[in-house]
Amino acid sequence: MDYAKESLRLHYEWKGKLDMTPKMKLENKDDLSLAYTPGVAAPCLEIEKDINKSYELTGRGNSVAVVTDGTAVLGLGDIGPEAGMPVMEGKCVLFKEFGGVNAIPLCIRSKDTDEIVKTVSLLAGSFGGINLEDIAAPRCFEIEAKLKEICDIPVFHDDQHGTAIVTAAALLNAVKLTGKQMGTLKMVINGAGSAGIAIAKLLIKMGFGDVVLCDSRGTIYKGREGMNADKTVMAEITNKENIKGSLADAMKGSDVFIGVSAPGIVSEEMVASMNEKSIVLPMANPVPEIMPDLAKKAGAYIVGTGRSDFPNQINNVLAFPGIFRGALDVRASDINEDMKVAAAEGIASLVSDEDLSVDYIIPSALDKSVAKVVAEKVAEAAKKSGVARI
Amino acid sequence: MDYAKESLRLHYEWKGKLDMTPKMKLENKDDLSLAYTPGVAAPCLEIEKDINKSYELTGRGNSVAVVTDGTAVLGLGDIGPEAGMPVMEGKCVLFKEFGGVNAIPLCIRSKDTDEIVKTVSLLAGSFGGINLEDIAAPRCFEIEAKLKEICDIPVFHDDQHGTAIVTAAALLNAVKLTGKQMGTLKMVINGAGSAGIAIAKLLIKMGFGDVVLCDSRGTIYKGREGMNADKTVMAEITNKENIKGSLADAMKGSDVFIGVSAPGIVSEEMVASMNEKSIVLPMANPVPEIMPDLAKKAGAYIVGTGRSDFPNQINNVLAFPGIFRGALDVRASDINEDMKVAAAEGIASLVSDEDLSVDYIIPSALDKSVAKVVAEKVAEAAKKSGVARI
Repeated sequence: MDYAKESLRLHYEWKGKLDMTPKMKLENKDDLSLAYTPGVAAPCLEIEKDINKSYELTGRGNSVAVVTDGTAVLGLGDIGPEAGMPVMEGKCVLFKEFGGVNAIPLCIRSKDTDEIVKTVSLLAGSFGGINLEDIAAPRCFEIEAKLKEICDIPVFHDDQHGTAIVTAAALLNAVKLTGKQMGTLKMVINGAGSAGIAIAKLLIKMGFGDVVLCDSRGTIYKGREGMNADKTVMAEITNKENIKGSLADAMKGSDVFIGVSAPGIVSEEMVASMNEKSIVLPMANPVPEIMPDLAKKAGAYIVGTGRSDFPNQINNVLAFPGIFRGALDVRASDINEDMKVAAAEGIASLVSDEDLSVDYIIPSALDKSVAKVVAEKVAEAAKKSGVARI
Repeated sequence: MDYAKESLRLHYEWKGKLDMTPKMKLENKDDLSLAYTPGVAAPCLEIEKDINKSYELTGRGNSVAVVTDGTAVLGLGDIGPEAGMPVMEGKCVLFKEFGGVNAIPLCIRSKDTDEIVKTVSLLAGSFGGINLEDIAAPRCFEIEAKLKEICDIPVFHDDQHGTAIVTAAALLNAVKLTGKQMGTLKMVINGAGSAGIAIAKLLIKMGFGDVVLCDSRGTIYKGREGMNADKTVMAEITNKENIKGSLADAMKGSDVFIGVSAPGIVSEEMVASMNEKSIVLPMANPVPEIMPDLAKKAGAYIVGTGRSDFPNQINNVLAFPGIFRGALDVRASDINEDMKVAAAEGIASLVSDEDLSVDYIIPSALDKSVAKVVAEKVAEAAKKSGVARI
């Protein structure tokens, strides 16, 4: 199927992918008086007395805003806020279908960090959570950090953390198959934008050995000149051996390659230079850093991509619906590191030891039972870490 | 029925009055690839090329944000943004049920005019229109005026204009029954907040004779000391005879009383002091300025209130769903005066000459055919006045 052509046709037909559907009928005077005036004054007054009642008496307890500024939409780059909306709507569809969450797509006509932060923070009373989406790095880091500080509801940048969580889930299972030790793995991440940095941070937090981050200039190491603030910080916590050189240099003798970068930039030689039983996750979409068959041919033991037409699809939809479902269920004030780790472990746990194989390290992106398990693990972690409010 | 008690019970049951419902199924790989990646890139790129395509390829063409700061919710006053949300959700239900419009409830945690304007204007790419709701005067005037200037989509403060439109519709028909001339009517409006001022402006625009606006200090007249800017402006265009005195003084010898003020402040004597065939519209909710039976006893010829349990219910739901439906249908950039007049005339036209009586001057608030007619009239007026974009 020509997805582009058919999707465009469908989008013209749909005219928006979501409807707002009332939960009640309005057929007589009483219906109107109960859903609206004068009856509606009663729930208003309850919330005025106790603002927490807004989670019970309005849709807030089951709603998430999906917010973009349109600056890093898919692989398309800065296409503008309105042009990002088809993706936001799609994300909202996934939120509902997989997590039962009512998600509202919002695009913001600004590229100014403070304006975006202000706008989102002033809307926080309308929602139970904020999912940031397709906002360019490094602005996305600052926006997320500031919003997490200001808002009393969870703020989650899916391009960072969703990607990190599903990658970690895939790795947890892949490593089992290799029989290697998590703590001694040598790992290379190519792409030091929002996703690459978040993956590195989460893997380190989970005890995954050493990570070498690479960008277009090669490895990121302590003392490299001309790095932005985020990369400078990453240089401190990654690349323990302080490897200087190209991506190819970094990959030599490594156990894991993770690509969140660009099509076709990994060669068979580079894969062949990795350790035995290498794990290769070229996740650039739609065209991966190296095609799975080539990676396999070059000696990769396990390969996972972002694509649905190859085994081991590493897709954020395994994470975000369950994460928000869990966070909303316990009215979490934050989605913290413990909750992210719990989500990754939850996703990984859905592949049983019997089923686990080099072609099945992660559940199917279409498996709607994943979110439920993830939600339970995330809710539990929220309670343990003290951010649950019910 | 105890509406307060039952409404509260239902609100706990509903946990939000609306659901976000996807328009498509997500059951297999193709479904996912068409509604989301990779197919979704195609509509994104179309919108990037031509931003107007956002009206066709996203939900923007049929969506309205219902926005409050929670400072003037129903008759409850400044109860806070979260506490205003049950009303916003109710409004969104009405938008859908009566106008087929997808409306999204948003509350803003700010009472600062510029912050509210900035927030709403930065979100304008997400919606086809903005309905402002329950924002206190005089801030609501400035917020609406600034947003109308900045935004490329219609901005409409329903508490002002919706109320004005349905009041004008009721009056158009009531005046027919009295046989009086529109242009020579003496009219008194009690309440010089957002609704009272908007009613006065629309009636004057429509050629309804002279209006005397009253507030808690009595009539508003040129030269009265201590008036705010809005009242000072109104003093210039109302009260041609420069009547000074109390509401009772103003009502003497008047033809029409319109109340958007407080319960029970109009006495039988005040109604009795009006001209023959007086029209009395005490719209304070839920308790009117004077109860209909008392007004009738005192000599009122026609009485209309905001209540559904008396004849002639003057309810905004007759106006806003059709107005936005019409504005969205022609992708209007504004809801201008001509469109408001067209809406009032459209509502009035739905009462046929045969049916018109002192107890039936306006269609039922539950009549779902009203919005369609209003939408057609509004769309036509938008085209004629040059604000339609398709």
